[in-house]
Amino acid sequence: MTKIDLKDFIRKINNKPWQPLDVAKVNNQIVRIAYFKGEFNWHKHKDEDELFYIYEGSITIQVRNKPDIVLNKGEMALISKNVEHCPKSKRGAYVLMFEPAILKSKGNNI
Amino acid sequence: MTKIDLKDFIRKINNKPWQPLDVAKVNNQIVRIAYFKGEFNWHKHKDEDELFYIYEGSITIQVRNKPDIVLNKGEMALISKNVEHCPKSKRGAYVLMFEPAILKSKGNNI
Repeated sequence: MTKIDLKDFIRKINNKPWQPLDVAKVNNQIVRIAYFKGEFNWHKHKDEDELFYIYEGSITIQVRNKPDIVLNKGEMALISKNVEHCPKSKRGAYVLMFEPAILKSKGNNI
Repeated sequence: MTKIDLKDFIRKINNKPWQPLDVAKVNNQIVRIAYFKGEFNWHKHKDEDELFYIYEGSITIQVRNKPDIVLNKGEMALISKNVEHCPKSKRGAYVLMFEPAILKSKGNNI
C-alpha cells in the first residue's frame, strides 16, 4: 500500500558513504539503501545471505579467494552466508541490500 | 558469490506475462522476476508482505478501497500482508518481487 520513494532516501543520504537507511521491512527482511564510496571492510555474516542490487553507479565486491564481482546499474549479486567479502566503489554507487532485519551492515557483525 | 544476470532471465521470460522466474533465494525469501502485461487478478497473501520493484516499464497496482499505486522504472512499493491487490500494466513491465519462498504469486494463494 506504500509507494517507496528511493530518491527521497538518496537525498537524505546525500552521499554520506556506508550509512544504510532502512527502506522497507518485508516479512522478516529489511531492504536498505546505502551510498558506497571508497572501500568498506572485510566481513562476513555467519548465518545470513545478503543480496546487493545496484540502483545507480557501479561497485566491486571483493570475495575472499574468489574473483571480484563487478556490478553495474541494474545488476545484482548474492553473497551467501559465511562468505567473507568487502565491497568498494571508486566513483560511488547507490545500492539496495536485502538482508535479515537483524543485520546492521556495519561491518564484521558476525 | 554469484552475479545474477537479470537480462538472461528476461530473455528466458521473453514477454510471457505473469510467469515469474526465481532469481535468487535470500535466506527464507525469494526474489522473482516477471513480465507484467495486461491485468492480473485480485488476490491477497494472508501472512506475507510483498515488495515490488520496477526493473523496466511501468505498472499500476490496484489496491482494494485505496488509490491506485503507479510505479515507474526504479520505483518500489510494499503491499502489506492481507491487503487485496491486483497489478496491471498497459505497456508491459519487468518487475522484481521479494516475498517468502513459500509464495508462488500465481494469484489467490492465501
